[in-house]
Amino acid sequence: MREAEVPVTFQPSGQTVYVLRGTGLLEAAADAGIVLDQPCGGLGKCGKCRLVVPRGACQPSPAEVEVFSADQLQAGFRLACQSSVSGPTTVEVPASSLPASYQKILVRAEQAPLAVADPVVRKRYVELPLPGRGDDDPDLLRLEKALGPFEVGLGLLREIPAKLRQAGFRGTAVLSGGRLMDFEPQDTRAESFAVATDVGTTTLVASLLDLNAGSDLAVASRLNPQTQFGDDVLSRIRLVREAPDGLRELNETIIRAVDEMIGELVERAGIRRERIYELTFSGNTTMQQLLCGVDPSSLGEVPFVPTAGRGPLLPAAELGLHVHPRAMAWVLPVIGGFVGGDTVSGMLATGLAEAQGPTLLVDIGTNGEIALSADGKLSAASTAAGPAFEGARISCGMRGSSGAIEKVIVDGRLRTNVIGNVPPVGLCGSGLIDLAAELLRHGLLTPEGRLRTTDQLPDGVLPDLARRLVVHDGHAAFVLASETETRDGSPLVLTQHDVRELQLAAGAIRAGIVLLLQRAGLQPQDLRAVLIGGGFGNFIRRSNAQRIGLLPWQIPRQRIRYQGNTSLAGARLVALSEQARRTAEELARRTEHVDLSCHPDFQRAFAEAMVFPGG
Amino acid sequence: MREAEVPVTFQPSGQTVYVLRGTGLLEAAADAGIVLDQPCGGLGKCGKCRLVVPRGACQPSPAEVEVFSADQLQAGFRLACQSSVSGPTTVEVPASSLPASYQKILVRAEQAPLAVADPVVRKRYVELPLPGRGDDDPDLLRLEKALGPFEVGLGLLREIPAKLRQAGFRGTAVLSGGRLMDFEPQDTRAESFAVATDVGTTTLVASLLDLNAGSDLAVASRLNPQTQFGDDVLSRIRLVREAPDGLRELNETIIRAVDEMIGELVERAGIRRERIYELTFSGNTTMQQLLCGVDPSSLGEVPFVPTAGRGPLLPAAELGLHVHPRAMAWVLPVIGGFVGGDTVSGMLATGLAEAQGPTLLVDIGTNGEIALSADGKLSAASTAAGPAFEGARISCGMRGSSGAIEKVIVDGRLRTNVIGNVPPVGLCGSGLIDLAAELLRHGLLTPEGRLRTTDQLPDGVLPDLARRLVVHDGHAAFVLASETETRDGSPLVLTQHDVRELQLAAGAIRAGIVLLLQRAGLQPQDLRAVLIGGGFGNFIRRSNAQRIGLLPWQIPRQRIRYQGNTSLAGARLVALSEQARRTAEELARRTEHVDLSCHPDFQRAFAEAMVFPGG
Repeated sequence: MREAEVPVTFQPSGQTVYVLRGTGLLEAAADAGIVLDQPCGGLGKCGKCRLVVPRGACQPSPAEVEVFSADQLQAGFRLACQSSVSGPTTVEVPASSLPASYQKILVRAEQAPLAVADPVVRKRYVELPLPGRGDDDPDLLRLEKALGPFEVGLGLLREIPAKLRQAGFRGTAVLSGGRLMDFEPQDTRAESFAVATDVGTTTLVASLLDLNAGSDLAVASRLNPQTQFGDDVLSRIRLVREAPDGLRELNETIIRAVDEMIGELVERAGIRRERIYELTFSGNTTMQQLLCGVDPSSLGEVPFVPTAGRGPLLPAAELGLHVHPRAMAWVLPVIGGFVGGDTVSGMLATGLAEAQGPTLLVDIGTNGEIALSADGKLSAASTAAGPAFEGARISCGMRGSSGAIEKVIVDGRLRTNVIGNVPPVGLCGSGLIDLAAELLRHGLLTPEGRLRTTDQLPDGVLPDLARRLVVHDGHAAFVLASETETRDGSPLVLTQHDVRELQLAAGAIRAGIVLLLQRAGLQPQDLRAVLIGGGFGNFIRRSNAQRIGLLPWQIPRQRIRYQGNTSLAGARLVALSEQARRTAEELARRTEHVDLSCHPDFQRAFAEAMVFPGG
Repeated sequence: MREAEVPVTFQPSGQTVYVLRGTGLLEAAADAGIVLDQPCGGLGKCGKCRLVVPRGACQPSPAEVEVFSADQLQAGFRLACQSSVSGPTTVEVPASSLPASYQKILVRAEQAPLAVADPVVRKRYVELPLPGRGDDDPDLLRLEKALGPFEVGLGLLREIPAKLRQAGFRGTAVLSGGRLMDFEPQDTRAESFAVATDVGTTTLVASLLDLNAGSDLAVASRLNPQTQFGDDVLSRIRLVREAPDGLRELNETIIRAVDEMIGELVERAGIRRERIYELTFSGNTTMQQLLCGVDPSSLGEVPFVPTAGRGPLLPAAELGLHVHPRAMAWVLPVIGGFVGGDTVSGMLATGLAEAQGPTLLVDIGTNGEIALSADGKLSAASTAAGPAFEGARISCGMRGSSGAIEKVIVDGRLRTNVIGNVPPVGLCGSGLIDLAAELLRHGLLTPEGRLRTTDQLPDGVLPDLARRLVVHDGHAAFVLASETETRDGSPLVLTQHDVRELQLAAGAIRAGIVLLLQRAGLQPQDLRAVLIGGGFGNFIRRSNAQRIGLLPWQIPRQRIRYQGNTSLAGARLVALSEQARRTAEELARRTEHVDLSCHPDFQRAFAEAMVFPGG
């Protein structure tokens, strides 16, 4: 699908992503789920997002020349915020470029080489005394003398006598929390793996983790095959409510996909499935319930009630996943029906609760999720942006896949970037934001969201823009690509209706932000940082998102920071650290869930937010 | 099989046992698993074992006349140690007649009518607020607000949304420890049951418990169908080691039997299987492992290593038992390969650890288990008595079933009691002990265990005894019943070889007692009490067991106390009380396991113990 993209491999994790030439390294890293530290907000000043591009690095930017020595530049040192991908390449990510929540893990790993921080799964190699005259300790007590107390299930209880004897009472105990999972012959400590999965409505991303090093061995991603049953969570909830087999079908579809991804990961890393002892899952509330086979019907009607609040710990085998037969799966806790485990993951991975000064975490999607940390208090809300950013309800809209115009720049004339370097087929969310921002800047669009007709244009509008204005269904419209430029011979036109849809989507998120801030007695300009999580957010241009009012425009652009796939990052953390699980539980329960639809000011705030800044 | 026995029903538990007319009420109660308090040791002095026999009570004994008022006697008050069964009858057991370990439970039950002491399974009726605008708490958090935190498995997680909504958010939560087991519509608190099972090598006894009242609703017992594969544990271990399907077969046989007994119990009590939320099992180490389907092979060879030490908690459904689908089964902890959960149960039920003064708990069987409490220290050992007490290896031996001579008295002449009031078929263990004791008393048997020939008899031997001496295989032998008296026309003869077998059996137990005492620096006369647990011990005559040296003869008979089926009593306690489980674990781990076969003095002690007292 993305034939013209080039591979970028990140080391030491070995993840490979495919991106267009010219994509910034920060974006490529985010695409691979790697969040880089960028305290200066991507201005190339702090030097924190340093990477090493051993071969084929771009020419250094002035900022990079400032930050690095000549030797370093020669060795391939670059700043992710300043460099872009010029061809297939390999990039080394130093641990120091990862934000604190990652570093903590890695630092601890250095202190205790056999244990990454405090993973739930621990392996202990033991050589037990052999039973003999005067030593008739029961098998499990013999093990407990070496390991401390643990619990054991029926399966292992039945297997343990033979396992111990076949191994000559020497081997590796696998413990998960307070439970003995297995006893493996010989020293298998080096082989201890987990899989962290981001269960997105649209995309599934799974990362195979080495529990000793805390590093990723492989990452797999694919379209969530549930999309065949409906693009958004509401259509899937509807299927469950209406089709007798709907829940089973949706559950089996996603379980099969995750199981296949696990197969892909173990094959790529050359490990055995039974060496995966732990699974973690992060997704929105509906996706998490569908993954667990829990009826999400109550999420489809007011007041949108989830089933579990705390994160359930479930046997992977009961879920239908083929890893170690006694592996457990932990699903992230949720805050509400539309503020799910992925938001909790984001709060966890970005350290939102410890942020200095008022900080917002925003995940832009069909449902925008917004979390605010201010004065030690956490609040979160979701807001129904609708599917405009995914291309739906936009006349020439499409997903961010091959053929999508994903970038629009006005640089003397209108220029576009098309995913896959093919003739354009449509306009995806990031391109839509770009286009609207440029039209606002150049006076083709009023702050109220009206496309001007040719005769209403202000003076000095660029000819290349002015000539693209047409009349469509009695309203002004803007031609992005003519018949001759597109793949299928139809022009790509932004209509007045499309602008209204964008206003609704951006307005919903902006209204949510405004109300959350208002409840905390804050103004947008008080924000020290706006963290962008979720898949889509990492592909938008910050300045353009500010221009259309999707993100607060009252703050400097560098306070807005891409965080990559924070849902996956959170799932990784809870696979590596028991403390992270407790923190996730605390975050979910500490966070006040604000129901915007109940908020008396929501309609007014929403109406106001529909107007673009400057209006 | 026991057609001539009469039913005795105990209230309030409703248990019915079938006993011979003339059986003491103490024995009948023990047979029903009811242990009565008897601080005076059955002398009729303390009045603690009082019962009420509303209809058809025997004539009061002088001791009873002393203890009770005329009105009380009229109302049927009797002492269990003084009364015997004269026909089908119903007996009321006051709570005050139960020993402290039982009383504790009942007393607490009175204080908190909805909870018996601290059962692991608790029911809570809740009426939850309905979800609505401004209250979108997740289902499980809504429940947790009412119940406190709990864990939940995948099965219930999937069922809970429908269960809560169908019940209108009002119903009964079933909690087991920290786990939510179920949510039942309406108030089902009154229906909360458990089954405690004594898994004996020969006999299975299961008691259905009302967890609210702490009382028994029904008791079922049957022959352990595993006996078809071998009478003793070693033959069953051998089957597992030699037959590829042996373990599965033995496991399925006992599980099927237990499941049928549960069916019997629920039918008799008129309750539903799904209202049984908890199972407990107490048996010897091998039986417990076979019940769990855990290979007992290592129990069949030195150093006889059990698999689990602590008591495993296992899902009843995984064991193949049909009760509540999420019910758990708890199996008692074991001390060693031949000092199992039944001994721990006995220690728990008799309060051995808190006994005043040195106290011994003895379970006489194929394996004699002995536990000693002295100076706050607990020790335990097993000793291989062999199957003589069960009738094996005795030429005219048989189990204690219909046709067995179970009692021998010399009262001017030799008199016998036969189970079922039928012509005798053989001699069971209690009869064998009686006979040997009488032969010793009347000089027909020397302390060294030699049967005297007619010409070696001392003066004044009763003619009825003297005439029974014959010569058999060149040795003296004693005719217990002639051809004309037995059912099959063969005489019942006690041979010199039979006496040797009895010496081996009694000597093994006596040697164990002597060595345990010796390690504690004690003499038999230091013992304040000898508690008799296990099925067989409750049928022997104490004075005769003392006469042959099976039990310490150096102490007054009243210090020897029957405790009934202490294995079942312990299983009951741990079904009713979480604290009892912890105590059982502590007891099992606190108790020093003495391996007599390793003891340097064992051979000498055993050789000495072979000689009957007085030699």
